[in-house]
Amino acid sequence: MNLQLDGALLLEQIRILGELGADPVQGGRTRIALTDAEKAGRDQVVAWMKALDLEVRIDRIGNIFGTLPAASGEALAPLMMGSHIDTVTNAGALDGCYGVLAGLAVIRAYRDAGVLPSRPITVGAFTNEEGVRYQPDMMGSLVYAGGLEVQVALDTLGTDGTRLGDELARIGYAGDLQPGAIVPHEYLELHIEQGPILEAEGIQIGVVENLQGISWQQVTVQGNANHAGTTPTRLRHDAGYVACAAVAEARAIARDAGSTLATTGCIAFEPNVINVIPRRAVFTVDLRDPDEARLQQAEQRFAAFLERIAAEEGVKISSERLVRFEPVIFDATLADQIEASAVRLGLSHRRMTSGAGHDAQMIARIAPAAMIFVPSRGGISHNPREHTDDAQLVMGAEVLLDVVARRLA
Amino acid sequence: MNLQLDGALLLEQIRILGELGADPVQGGRTRIALTDAEKAGRDQVVAWMKALDLEVRIDRIGNIFGTLPAASGEALAPLMMGSHIDTVTNAGALDGCYGVLAGLAVIRAYRDAGVLPSRPITVGAFTNEEGVRYQPDMMGSLVYAGGLEVQVALDTLGTDGTRLGDELARIGYAGDLQPGAIVPHEYLELHIEQGPILEAEGIQIGVVENLQGISWQQVTVQGNANHAGTTPTRLRHDAGYVACAAVAEARAIARDAGSTLATTGCIAFEPNVINVIPRRAVFTVDLRDPDEARLQQAEQRFAAFLERIAAEEGVKISSERLVRFEPVIFDATLADQIEASAVRLGLSHRRMTSGAGHDAQMIARIAPAAMIFVPSRGGISHNPREHTDDAQLVMGAEVLLDVVARRLA
Repeated sequence: MNLQLDGALLLEQIRILGELGADPVQGGRTRIALTDAEKAGRDQVVAWMKALDLEVRIDRIGNIFGTLPAASGEALAPLMMGSHIDTVTNAGALDGCYGVLAGLAVIRAYRDAGVLPSRPITVGAFTNEEGVRYQPDMMGSLVYAGGLEVQVALDTLGTDGTRLGDELARIGYAGDLQPGAIVPHEYLELHIEQGPILEAEGIQIGVVENLQGISWQQVTVQGNANHAGTTPTRLRHDAGYVACAAVAEARAIARDAGSTLATTGCIAFEPNVINVIPRRAVFTVDLRDPDEARLQQAEQRFAAFLERIAAEEGVKISSERLVRFEPVIFDATLADQIEASAVRLGLSHRRMTSGAGHDAQMIARIAPAAMIFVPSRGGISHNPREHTDDAQLVMGAEVLLDVVARRLA
Repeated sequence: MNLQLDGALLLEQIRILGELGADPVQGGRTRIALTDAEKAGRDQVVAWMKALDLEVRIDRIGNIFGTLPAASGEALAPLMMGSHIDTVTNAGALDGCYGVLAGLAVIRAYRDAGVLPSRPITVGAFTNEEGVRYQPDMMGSLVYAGGLEVQVALDTLGTDGTRLGDELARIGYAGDLQPGAIVPHEYLELHIEQGPILEAEGIQIGVVENLQGISWQQVTVQGNANHAGTTPTRLRHDAGYVACAAVAEARAIARDAGSTLATTGCIAFEPNVINVIPRRAVFTVDLRDPDEARLQQAEQRFAAFLERIAAEEGVKISSERLVRFEPVIFDATLADQIEASAVRLGLSHRRMTSGAGHDAQMIARIAPAAMIFVPSRGGISHNPREHTDDAQLVMGAEVLLDVVARRLA
């Protein structure tokens, strides 16, 4: 088989999709799941799937699947590629879209060569990976993998008070396929790294063999508001100080463990007045580790710190778990084959861990899965400055095509 | 002389003034300087001054002075008592008002006895002590003491965009007296402690012999926003972590120095998203110490920490000084006489430092000054739960009357 990737058309489709929901002033685009802008993106992707003469099916949670049939015509379990086309606010053009459109580019190589694969190839665009308006994120693939009841997902209320199922019907993407009805034979997701490692090391291809466990919690410290000038240190119950000490402890946990990452992205004090000791502090803690035991150690050390400082400072601390995903080990055979394809194409490569969550981690529950990363300039994502060189984008898609071609040879 | 304090009337006036600007739902009152509610408070105080047949004068910054003439009729430098009647949002009824109305109660004792003092007695209500809408706080007494040009103060723009001088004229309190025109012979300010010490020690009267130096700064940390899951700790420039480490360092400074207080009341992260490393963090630091050298040591240690951590973490840190007042040593003779009056009245007492700023610290620049404190339940102030028992309020005014009577005997 002589399968040729049309890199120029892939780049052109990334550009066209990136114009939907674009902000001409700030330079980014906003296609939050199930909005009108995202409907426009869906319509475009479906049009491209139809142009490739794929069978397009929509499931009850709005996941879009375009399938190229097998040469035999048999309804074998498909090789699936996919990602998502929803975005955060003011996003780049690559996150998610690259994986979906590279999947179409792989199928196009078959169409251009006039051949069909040994088993069906499906490209999936999963609903609401970003989780901006409706929680949790990675929702479409989570539902598809059986991790969340479809009815519960449809009944989810958004930050704007809308019901997900209503918005899905409104934009015309409430399909009838039962999520999970088509179990893939294997799943591949090509994605930008969204981190700085490949660029920092000058490496072209990341062979993603696992994905970090993620632990999100929101911590609330309840102290006493008092006058900053008249309350001796020993009589203080300073919720703000306790929160900051806990943030510093989280960093110490990350430093000591080496593999653990700890981030506090959100914080708020009440009353937030310069000369009033904070009565209340609320902050988030994002802990990640590729190893479940080490992630649990980090959680336990942090919880023990909170207990100790609550007693020392005379404050009450409560913690609400927001998200908890165990680490995912991707399929070793698929990872080996990605590496072999990188070698075959003469590309530098390294094994690596995905720091971010991806639809692949959900589909890994029901099928062998792995991911391919390409470099992200400056590690930047979720931002209009998100960038990967065109040549690198095409190389990543070449690797994906090579893996698919060899899996279906 | 048989001077009798009318404690019941003092308490009644505190209650009446406290109803102006009251919020019937939350229980507090809001009389921010130069608002309609505060004008109502001013009108009430002026009416009470006139009822005592005092000469009422308003200066250019809106400070109100009511003067009882000397027995001799001579225009001697007056003994001045005072404080303020503006409040923070949702305030108690005592902060400031107690000192002004107790001053009127002292004068009333002279009127009731039908005698005049050996030198004039003036009660002052200083403009904008709280500094809620217009910065800096303690503005009226600062201008009066020559620390701020009256024209600069009048041109101050508020948080709502209004010009102070316009608001002052609008409420009818742009007087013609030149601030500082009447230099007091001495100044006494009776105030609730606004701190927990007297209550915690079961003591009735605080003899305030000094006032802490105050150093306020706003610190801005500029780092890089990056993905919480994909950015190794060593490649982070986490503005949020740096801010929290600095808050913890400020507490360590306070703990090590003993006499220093350190508070971070305000903090904000950008973009304040759970899985994004903060690009920017802004927080305030309130440092106080009764000793200028120790206060400077605290400032220097904090600045050195910021410099060190900026280098270690690869962030930029800038610091803006918001307020800086050196410690004030009150007049030793006046403090001795306050103590002697407490002894004479059989009240428990202790020497203490004022942790909060007060108009007395400004007037201390131009006249001998001292303060008398009464206990604050729970140390609470700037809150509807601010409370001092009626008996303690009356005792404080009795001490004030005794000191005045002996000074003017």
